[in-house]
Amino acid sequence: MRRVTAGEHGQVLDEQALAGVDAYFRATNYLSVGQIYLMDNPLLKEPLAAEHIKPRLLGHWGTTPGLNLIYAHCNRVIRERDLDMIYIIGPGHGGPAIASNAWLEGSYSDAYPSIRRDAGGMQRLFRQFSFPGGIPSHVAPELPGSIHEGGELGYSLAHAFGAAFDNPDLVVTCVVGDGEAETGALATSWQSTRFLDASRDGAVLPILHLNGYKIANPTVLSRIGDEALEKLLQGCGWKPYLVEGDEPELVHQAMAATLDRVLDEIKGIQAQARAESGAPSPGEPEVLWPMIVLKTPKGWTGPDKVDGVQVQGTWRAHQVPLASVRGNVEHTAVLEQWLRSYRPEELFDEQGRPVELLQEWAPKWDRRMGANPHANGGRLMVDLDLPDFRDFGVEVPRPGGSVAEATRVMGGFVAEVMRRNMHNFRLFGPDETASNRLAAVFEVTNKTWNAQVLPTDEHLAPDGRVMEVLSEHLCQGWLEGYLLTGRHGLFSCYEAFIHIIDSMFNQHAKWLKVTRNIEWRASIPSLNYLLTSHVWRQDHNGFSHQDPGFIDHVVNKKAEVIRVYLPPDGNCLLSVADHCLRSRDYVNVVVAGKQLQPNWLTVDEAAAHCARGLGVWEWASNDDGDPDVVLGCAGDVPTLEVLAAADLLRQYLPDLKVRVVNVVDLMKLQSASEHPHGLPDAEFDAIFTPDKPIIFAYHGYPWLIHRLTYRRTNHDNVHARGYKEEGTTTTPFDMVVMNDMDRYKLVMDVIDRVPGLATKAAVVRQQMVDKRAVHHRYVREHGEDMPEVRDWTWPES
Amino acid sequence: MRRVTAGEHGQVLDEQALAGVDAYFRATNYLSVGQIYLMDNPLLKEPLAAEHIKPRLLGHWGTTPGLNLIYAHCNRVIRERDLDMIYIIGPGHGGPAIASNAWLEGSYSDAYPSIRRDAGGMQRLFRQFSFPGGIPSHVAPELPGSIHEGGELGYSLAHAFGAAFDNPDLVVTCVVGDGEAETGALATSWQSTRFLDASRDGAVLPILHLNGYKIANPTVLSRIGDEALEKLLQGCGWKPYLVEGDEPELVHQAMAATLDRVLDEIKGIQAQARAESGAPSPGEPEVLWPMIVLKTPKGWTGPDKVDGVQVQGTWRAHQVPLASVRGNVEHTAVLEQWLRSYRPEELFDEQGRPVELLQEWAPKWDRRMGANPHANGGRLMVDLDLPDFRDFGVEVPRPGGSVAEATRVMGGFVAEVMRRNMHNFRLFGPDETASNRLAAVFEVTNKTWNAQVLPTDEHLAPDGRVMEVLSEHLCQGWLEGYLLTGRHGLFSCYEAFIHIIDSMFNQHAKWLKVTRNIEWRASIPSLNYLLTSHVWRQDHNGFSHQDPGFIDHVVNKKAEVIRVYLPPDGNCLLSVADHCLRSRDYVNVVVAGKQLQPNWLTVDEAAAHCARGLGVWEWASNDDGDPDVVLGCAGDVPTLEVLAAADLLRQYLPDLKVRVVNVVDLMKLQSASEHPHGLPDAEFDAIFTPDKPIIFAYHGYPWLIHRLTYRRTNHDNVHARGYKEEGTTTTPFDMVVMNDMDRYKLVMDVIDRVPGLATKAAVVRQQMVDKRAVHHRYVREHGEDMPEVRDWTWPES
Repeated sequence: MRRVTAGEHGQVLDEQALAGVDAYFRATNYLSVGQIYLMDNPLLKEPLAAEHIKPRLLGHWGTTPGLNLIYAHCNRVIRERDLDMIYIIGPGHGGPAIASNAWLEGSYSDAYPSIRRDAGGMQRLFRQFSFPGGIPSHVAPELPGSIHEGGELGYSLAHAFGAAFDNPDLVVTCVVGDGEAETGALATSWQSTRFLDASRDGAVLPILHLNGYKIANPTVLSRIGDEALEKLLQGCGWKPYLVEGDEPELVHQAMAATLDRVLDEIKGIQAQARAESGAPSPGEPEVLWPMIVLKTPKGWTGPDKVDGVQVQGTWRAHQVPLASVRGNVEHTAVLEQWLRSYRPEELFDEQGRPVELLQEWAPKWDRRMGANPHANGGRLMVDLDLPDFRDFGVEVPRPGGSVAEATRVMGGFVAEVMRRNMHNFRLFGPDETASNRLAAVFEVTNKTWNAQVLPTDEHLAPDGRVMEVLSEHLCQGWLEGYLLTGRHGLFSCYEAFIHIIDSMFNQHAKWLKVTRNIEWRASIPSLNYLLTSHVWRQDHNGFSHQDPGFIDHVVNKKAEVIRVYLPPDGNCLLSVADHCLRSRDYVNVVVAGKQLQPNWLTVDEAAAHCARGLGVWEWASNDDGDPDVVLGCAGDVPTLEVLAAADLLRQYLPDLKVRVVNVVDLMKLQSASEHPHGLPDAEFDAIFTPDKPIIFAYHGYPWLIHRLTYRRTNHDNVHARGYKEEGTTTTPFDMVVMNDMDRYKLVMDVIDRVPGLATKAAVVRQQMVDKRAVHHRYVREHGEDMPEVRDWTWPES
Repeated sequence: MRRVTAGEHGQVLDEQALAGVDAYFRATNYLSVGQIYLMDNPLLKEPLAAEHIKPRLLGHWGTTPGLNLIYAHCNRVIRERDLDMIYIIGPGHGGPAIASNAWLEGSYSDAYPSIRRDAGGMQRLFRQFSFPGGIPSHVAPELPGSIHEGGELGYSLAHAFGAAFDNPDLVVTCVVGDGEAETGALATSWQSTRFLDASRDGAVLPILHLNGYKIANPTVLSRIGDEALEKLLQGCGWKPYLVEGDEPELVHQAMAATLDRVLDEIKGIQAQARAESGAPSPGEPEVLWPMIVLKTPKGWTGPDKVDGVQVQGTWRAHQVPLASVRGNVEHTAVLEQWLRSYRPEELFDEQGRPVELLQEWAPKWDRRMGANPHANGGRLMVDLDLPDFRDFGVEVPRPGGSVAEATRVMGGFVAEVMRRNMHNFRLFGPDETASNRLAAVFEVTNKTWNAQVLPTDEHLAPDGRVMEVLSEHLCQGWLEGYLLTGRHGLFSCYEAFIHIIDSMFNQHAKWLKVTRNIEWRASIPSLNYLLTSHVWRQDHNGFSHQDPGFIDHVVNKKAEVIRVYLPPDGNCLLSVADHCLRSRDYVNVVVAGKQLQPNWLTVDEAAAHCARGLGVWEWASNDDGDPDVVLGCAGDVPTLEVLAAADLLRQYLPDLKVRVVNVVDLMKLQSASEHPHGLPDAEFDAIFTPDKPIIFAYHGYPWLIHRLTYRRTNHDNVHARGYKEEGTTTTPFDMVVMNDMDRYKLVMDVIDRVPGLATKAAVVRQQMVDKRAVHHRYVREHGEDMPEVRDWTWPES
């Protein structure tokens, strides 16, 4: 692997600079060890004693010195080149490093004025770390400069690219841990170069930190040899430079020279691309982006051996190298020696303030990585310029009087949003934008593509605004990075496969929950999911493509950050989309089909209905204000089946008073005490009645309806239908039959649950049973649904 | 990239062999097109007419010819070398290919006698494909020879390695789609070579099929140039050979020569490793395994252009190249011409039977890939030789009279299981085996490691039986492949991060659900999860590490394949582990902590308690058969808090009759009508009472308890406590306080819900409020829990 030797650039660091960077490195190491171990005596003014040491030692030392080294060196190039740079820390366990650096450069005190840059502040900084009522041990939202928690490993590089997109002057330095590098998400993230436009996007500078070990094992990438590693990275579009060593002075010179080299190369690539843009043609070599492979010992500068066992440079340095210090005189001495090895007396003055050398080493104001506004993206957020969604509505002469593909209706709106907000909005999806009927966007933009292009290709260009890659991890990670830096986006995905990023959603939702209580964090655009190609219309792809459980997954997270919408038709989807794009700090899950289905509401009716979130559909009801039964529905296919059932009931049991209630905003079902969107109980009772049977057809697993309505007066009368894991490759209507959510079954449910129906009802019930049997034979003979089912729509009155 | 030219090996295929392979290729292509399009006239004995064509055209043609080509060539080498080979199909959408091949070689008729190898059988084969009541469009469990559905892309290569482990004579041919290759799971799966032992494991032969396109886009790996692709693969430990072309005859020769070459190399690697085993030392080059990169046009041999637009060789060939045939005379003609281009009259006799040339081309009996027993792993399954788990129990002189780390107790048992079943059981985990206290296994085996080893390393060896890699995807994928081929295993994982494989679990659970109804599929060992480092004891790692939602995720799948266990202590964990390792065809989720906690039951009591699944703990109850309140608990930390609450209640409200019920088998809570493990209602009522308040402390999100008990008589009186997404880096007890599941809060819940308590109760309630306040101050001052909480155990009576 290439190395930039000092000779090539001369000694980059003169004596003073070397002193500066090394002092910074020592100071942040000192502050990191202090955070892990000390609750008092921060400047070691007195000999270290048991009462100065925390009772529980938490934190991860192993990765910390490497993170400190990089931060110190970034500070130099930021100053010298006036760089706009943020720092993403894959080894998120290294929280102490970032807290140390933010404190030293002053951005920590800016965010938390009570943690001053003096001895008292240092003592508070130390004590609060991993301490009840204090700050978490990871690079959490509480830390200035962070947009990446890193507790669940694997997403750093995708976040870095998301941050770099559409920020042409930004350099995102991204430390990738060699443990993290084994994850699937990270392994495919290296390919992101093929989706970065050097003309319009910023740069990502990955620093793969090969400290060699995970919790208890060596890492794969540190044990395959430099040649294999270099090939792997080159094959992913990178040109790696190696910085290796364990003598700080030599590592400083090598790191400085290498950083200068890679930043020069980045500048060169950008300059050339900005002069002449375009994707490479077949045969033309692609541009390799420079990156750094940094090899330093795990737990570098910490205790070499503890109790005779090698710690530094092994996995034993992963967490706290000295695990039981309090009450262990020998270990206390080792700790004191370790802390003093950084020569704190040279670094902090009598009052505990960083000496001038350190203060000068840090950049100023917003150039400090802890204060860079990109890492508090809401500060830079520009609202979307949104067209009136009503302009994209479909004509609905009467309920069911026209048909549309809901997502195609939305596609027109999204295209106009993209046209108006060209560098402030992106659409993400795993190769499904066209399949999901959003192809209108290709009239205003292309798909981002920075690899070879053939003449037969369509809509590929380096500056495309639609991000398509067959990796839900990349879509999610890129989008998160984009949102966290204050821009807007939408992730469209097959419903079943959104589970691939369940855990990434978890982490983002937790991030949002925590940031709500952090005053200095500005609001960011919501994370918007459009889940389509959904469970009920995966009759063609079969059982593996049928799973509506993402909704269940998201509602386990804090109610204040979760919103779920199930628009019943295209106009409602438009209204919901408009609402979601305006919202902030939420996760919005929107589920809508892409197949032709009747439209129920005009766009104005849709806007009113969606604003309410749920409502009685009078035109489909005949209850005169006092229903015998309520038919509830949430989701496009359940709505269709409920309306068809209501139609059957009118024909077969015309005296039965039926009320149809459609739910768009699922959280309306929950009590107001449990969700901010929850309908007040009195209103809920007025709509669903306090005592009549409620037959509810729901898009997903039916239990969620019970959960949401659990505290409602009438919950014992709720009978929910939904997906129950029955499915295969079959017809659309057979899917609802297999899961007992079809119109015939719903009529049977009504008959079974409404008390006191005349004997006629038993006859009707049998007729429904017969209809299901006829269906069964028909589809198995013809391979498609019966016309009477396929073509049904709400009848003209 | 290397190519094996015909010259190097001479022409591998003589005239007869070339005729054979090409006939096989044409026949399977014909059968594939027939499946997608035809419901009648299978041999084209009459001109193709509308009524012969399916009304709905479903299926994926694009990938199919490539899959057929590979299958045909594998047949040759299987025959010539008497190979034991199975075929894993990453592009799982290519179901028609595998059905065609299985039918042609006869394994399909073996599994489904009504689908004979004649014209009638062919017609049934065609008609049933993607037809209601027939077979799915993907490589589903219904297809003989498959262990991989492939609807959700990305897991083929991990499955292939799982199948190869401990099968020294097996060759697993694994087609990796170039779309699939963009996923995270697949990207990291290339690294699996570093975990394969050539001495003891079989071989994986990946064939990266660069057909160039996904649904609507080119693929990344097809557009980065051969040089970059070669480097990428070499960096991952592979030596790729390129086979490229679109003229079948030339491709046949190149493919045959290349297959011979790579199989020779595989044999060579294995021979050498079996002569002298060991991991490479630093500096020593690693062995590169051969693989194939196959470049053929997408939709190869299909229509070149349709309506003037290029289809073959583009993404437009992904699904059905001719989308509306019925009623379109021109398209019907194109289809007929396409089908006839394979010259079916040369391939099938008058009765529709494959001609002799074809019959001879296929291997015989179990060597046919559709009949290979490894692909129906239960046929080869050997039961584990299990020790008596009671021998590993901890002493429990009285309830709470000793302490243990539950997973460490289990570790001893697992170690003995591994010792006795050295090549029939593996332990999988993302770098957490020691962290999860299972280190006893390292007394009997090592961690699998086939990369460089340093002198400071511990327990690394190529033939280790513990699979550690920082990728939950690889752990899950390898284990699935291992189980599906009839072996046993356990996946130990941090609870929060198991969500990373939510979607993989989904697919496996769906596979198990479907296979229950497939008679010829033999039972396989259950997929066992040990989730530890769980939500309540991630006080040290903080909020990102706290998520108990996997249980909610799994219970959405079919009850007949899902089991969830929450053993309250180490002896119970032993009993549960023993049970799970004996079970078949389930997913068992076991959640247990790794921290020191009191033991409640002797190992014999534990065995009895776990066999019942739930039960009253008499020793903790004072209800005399008629309780005022029931305290329920499920999970180790909830059990601790409930017992501590019961202790407090005895002290503060000695007249209150309290019953403590512990639940190990969570599904016991559900009604017998909903889950096979469900307790009959009468028994449930006897234990939980029909009308008394039930305060239930649960390990996960409390809503699940309501869901499970929804149909129980007394469900309105259930008050559940659990995790509600409150957490950070703090103390263990503070975690339960933050989530209102602590002993004090539980006492308050009792007081709030038991009617008619004396005024004394109000005083006690305030005392509990005070205790919480004292706790709050204490931990914020001292950074650790109060001794009275930390050291509490059940008092000696």
